[in-house]
Amino acid sequence: MSSPAETAQSLTPAAVQAAYDRIQSYVHRTPLVTSKTLDAVASTPQSGDALAGTPFEGQTPAHPRFRLFFKCENLQRIGAFKARGAFHALLRLIEERGEDEVKKRGVITHSSGNHAQALALAASSLNVPATIVMPRISTPSKIAGTQSHGAEIVFSGSTSVEREAIVADIQGKTDAIFVPPYDDPNIICGQGTTALELDAQFQDLQRGKSLDAVITPIGGGGLNAGVATYFSDKQTKVFGAEPSFEGADDCRRGLEAGKRVDRVATLTIADGLRTPVGLLNWEVLSDRRKVEGVFSVTEEQIKAAMRLVLERMKIVVEPSAVVGLAVCLFDENFRRRVEQEAGEAGWDVAIVFSGGNTTVEAIGKLFDQQ
Amino acid sequence: MSSPAETAQSLTPAAVQAAYDRIQSYVHRTPLVTSKTLDAVASTPQSGDALAGTPFEGQTPAHPRFRLFFKCENLQRIGAFKARGAFHALLRLIEERGEDEVKKRGVITHSSGNHAQALALAASSLNVPATIVMPRISTPSKIAGTQSHGAEIVFSGSTSVEREAIVADIQGKTDAIFVPPYDDPNIICGQGTTALELDAQFQDLQRGKSLDAVITPIGGGGLNAGVATYFSDKQTKVFGAEPSFEGADDCRRGLEAGKRVDRVATLTIADGLRTPVGLLNWEVLSDRRKVEGVFSVTEEQIKAAMRLVLERMKIVVEPSAVVGLAVCLFDENFRRRVEQEAGEAGWDVAIVFSGGNTTVEAIGKLFDQQ
Repeated sequence: MSSPAETAQSLTPAAVQAAYDRIQSYVHRTPLVTSKTLDAVASTPQSGDALAGTPFEGQTPAHPRFRLFFKCENLQRIGAFKARGAFHALLRLIEERGEDEVKKRGVITHSSGNHAQALALAASSLNVPATIVMPRISTPSKIAGTQSHGAEIVFSGSTSVEREAIVADIQGKTDAIFVPPYDDPNIICGQGTTALELDAQFQDLQRGKSLDAVITPIGGGGLNAGVATYFSDKQTKVFGAEPSFEGADDCRRGLEAGKRVDRVATLTIADGLRTPVGLLNWEVLSDRRKVEGVFSVTEEQIKAAMRLVLERMKIVVEPSAVVGLAVCLFDENFRRRVEQEAGEAGWDVAIVFSGGNTTVEAIGKLFDQQ
Repeated sequence: MSSPAETAQSLTPAAVQAAYDRIQSYVHRTPLVTSKTLDAVASTPQSGDALAGTPFEGQTPAHPRFRLFFKCENLQRIGAFKARGAFHALLRLIEERGEDEVKKRGVITHSSGNHAQALALAASSLNVPATIVMPRISTPSKIAGTQSHGAEIVFSGSTSVEREAIVADIQGKTDAIFVPPYDDPNIICGQGTTALELDAQFQDLQRGKSLDAVITPIGGGGLNAGVATYFSDKQTKVFGAEPSFEGADDCRRGLEAGKRVDRVATLTIADGLRTPVGLLNWEVLSDRRKVEGVFSVTEEQIKAAMRLVLERMKIVVEPSAVVGLAVCLFDENFRRRVEQEAGEAGWDVAIVFSGGNTTVEAIGKLFDQQ
């Protein structure tokens, strides 16, 4: 087996294009939408009060100019970008090992969330049996979503040790092939097709002009690594965003310390972003030629961004989806950089809304005023 | 002054086209979206249990086939179709009385909701002073929305008598021109432009084929009367939808009794639909050549439809917006009609999502499980 650093060599813009050619007929070309309201809010300086208690207290708030372009992967199949990676991983498996072997052995993964539904959908579309190990405490809507695609669900405890033990046990009996959620080159290239699409959509809108920047959430790092791979030979800068709650900003902290953080225990409301960055993903995210910087935001900032998207844009997103927007709205370091580099001209920034899998009850609980 | 029946003569498809020519540059051409998931849900027979306690108990549930097309007026300016009517009424006033007079006198209305914001926006866009009388108990977000467009807000009690007294008092001092929320030919033709757009959008999608039906919410009846006016010389059938809670289905009951119901006192969650149908609106809605039928739905059916739109389509709508969808999903009379008239071929039905002005707190409260 090759090392993560060696495998990372295979992550190229051409590999993302090849992934797109494979999955294009299986996934949605999700819309790239704009909002004058959000542009105006993001382009207004924060209040002095908002900077109290931060290193910027007492200083003039930055006045960046943003034109925002939202890539709506909440409208992707199964409600999240994860469909891209799952289809790509499975199509590659079939190419490499042959349809007969993959159909005979089937695939398996463990996930409490969007990857579970994504692999279940990809497997049912390609007539491959799938087993998904889900923690017993997963939200009922995600269990139902996974079941609705005909996958076999096996319940486990919620720690990764418990999940992996069950996966190993089942693999021992069925020889099912494991499809990892993010730490895998085929998954990364699949997620990278998000960037390929939004780049083309932006250029269609702007007659060939390039985006100044793209910002995506970072959990395991599959999406951000894929996006950074696609843009690695282009001018567009790639940034990442994480929640800061209970150390969920493992990538940002790892970059600061010069060493990947391999363990995280957080219950951030951005529940798609509770995992540490994968080994292969780290190879990309820690490469400053590929990813310019990673920023973190508080739970309150995530909620404020989510409120704006639901109430003003009328679009349903899950908390994980809006960390990039929260950086644009609230991270004074990022805002200063945009002001200093672009001045009055401002930046065209694409923000990836990674998913929209939430429930009306979960929205209610999040904004409960009691 | 002419009678409602006389005024109704002026409500023609050509008048809607003329309204569109006036307002087109001031309003959004909102998208017409589809959802395979919603088509599948609507095209599945209801369970026998769902029909228990209804006249259809024990019968085979209908199996209609729907292809649904959602006109997203929740993405209209100010978040509701009301922007269309307000711009049209104000542009007509300026045409008829001259810019100087209208600017000098200003406009006034009373509204707790979307009409307030719509007139405030239209007035500020056209540099006309506006006074909006709002009940003191209006939701803070709607007060803030109205204020943000620079209108002067005057608070009142919540009954229509109290509101109208304050309007009359202010008119006595300022001579401001009253712009009614729905019972007015210019408002009706403005709202009717929703139909003109969705008809064109559908034909673009379907290469000239016509919609089988359109269904819209009915509160005061401006939207439905406008839509029915536009389609009055076409094959597309027009239907209306109302909440049934506490007698909010005044139009349906009026049609049954052959006489307009002029008073309603309901606190239905569909708060845009609490008013009785206007006099002029009644002239259109009670004309069977224009409106084929009006159906009503329960609070639980409205909530179930709203949940589907938020969780599956990832679109934020207010409760009033989904009564038409709720009819398609749950009204067994309507579903039987579609099955009987269209069989396997099914119907192409446009559903107008009238608005999306709600808050995360309001969503939480609506689906509170306690």
